[in-house]
Amino acid sequence: MNIQSYPSKLLENAVEEFSKLPGIGRRSALRMVLHLLRMNSEEVKMFTKSIDDLKENVKFCKVCNNISDSDICEICSSKRRDTFTVCVVENIKDVMVIENTHQFNGLYHVLGGVINPMEGIGPSDLSIDKLMERVKSGQINEIIMALSPTTEGDTTNFYIYKKLKEFNINVTTLARGVAFGDELEYTDEITLGRAIVNRVKFDDAPSK
Amino acid sequence: MNIQSYPSKLLENAVEEFSKLPGIGRRSALRMVLHLLRMNSEEVKMFTKSIDDLKENVKFCKVCNNISDSDICEICSSKRRDTFTVCVVENIKDVMVIENTHQFNGLYHVLGGVINPMEGIGPSDLSIDKLMERVKSGQINEIIMALSPTTEGDTTNFYIYKKLKEFNINVTTLARGVAFGDELEYTDEITLGRAIVNRVKFDDAPSK
Repeated sequence: MNIQSYPSKLLENAVEEFSKLPGIGRRSALRMVLHLLRMNSEEVKMFTKSIDDLKENVKFCKVCNNISDSDICEICSSKRRDTFTVCVVENIKDVMVIENTHQFNGLYHVLGGVINPMEGIGPSDLSIDKLMERVKSGQINEIIMALSPTTEGDTTNFYIYKKLKEFNINVTTLARGVAFGDELEYTDEITLGRAIVNRVKFDDAPSK
Repeated sequence: MNIQSYPSKLLENAVEEFSKLPGIGRRSALRMVLHLLRMNSEEVKMFTKSIDDLKENVKFCKVCNNISDSDICEICSSKRRDTFTVCVVENIKDVMVIENTHQFNGLYHVLGGVINPMEGIGPSDLSIDKLMERVKSGQINEIIMALSPTTEGDTTNFYIYKKLKEFNINVTTLARGVAFGDELEYTDEITLGRAIVNRVKFDDAPSK
């Protein structure tokens, strides 16, 4: 359906606004807006209030930049976390993804993106200086670089790695290899090649 | 990704609210909310304002129930429309879809649903009485029933058809047949059967 004429300017505005969201075309925007129109006024107020509340009151952790309801996020202020290990990620979502693995008990550092000259994002646009300050404080033994395995991710990895060289600190990166449940014949050559080169003894291989 | 722990209650609330919308799971809800978080405050205000404005100020046409910015919608108040023909549809979206065909120049009547005993929707929940009043006013020659070809749609068709019998009025329904671009082998038997029974002379067939 190619929507050309809206029966109401108010409807058109709301559809326009929804279709600015990622992955939302005019068609799904219209579906969502018509759904909101059918909901009762209180429910709709709860919907818009949740967005306004988030936008107005959300904070970013002063230590790691993660989203938080207070000045220091729950992870950074926890007494049960290993404060000597810091995992560097691109964004908030990556923190959530890693937390859900329940395999990491250290702290995080959210960069806010990766170096991307094509989109005009340089090192100064990211919270790299803040990371260096954390390292300088001398409490960190290991930095885990957990950026996406893309050209931009690798560039950012390398940039930060170089900056960290002056400190006596371990810099590690996520293991690359065949993903759990993937069939070998559909694994790309680079990944498969690295998985062969970096093969592990059978005993060391995680059983799950 | 199975999202179990949110770094912020405000974020969780907003994600919950978005995932109430049709076709939106937790994952896309999170993606949209994080996008809103990256947008500047003014843009987000425009977004929530467009919803509040719609909900508070939208009107429903007093004649046909279509969504409108005024008491009588643009279609009903237009002087260029054929006021003797009324097309009965289920909802606002159907009006938009038919308008986009540019093949209909009459008026509409939005029922607000179809009779659906399973969901507790009876004739009195729909604007059927209002339709009858329009017919009684004596200005209408033809009623086109354009409901979905489902059991509920057919039930509603039949109910309205019976009520219209006392008036001297043509009641028509949308033609059923093979859809443009459909392959015959994938057309269901009922549709194909009807298309054969109701076959048209080659000259009469629409060329497009």
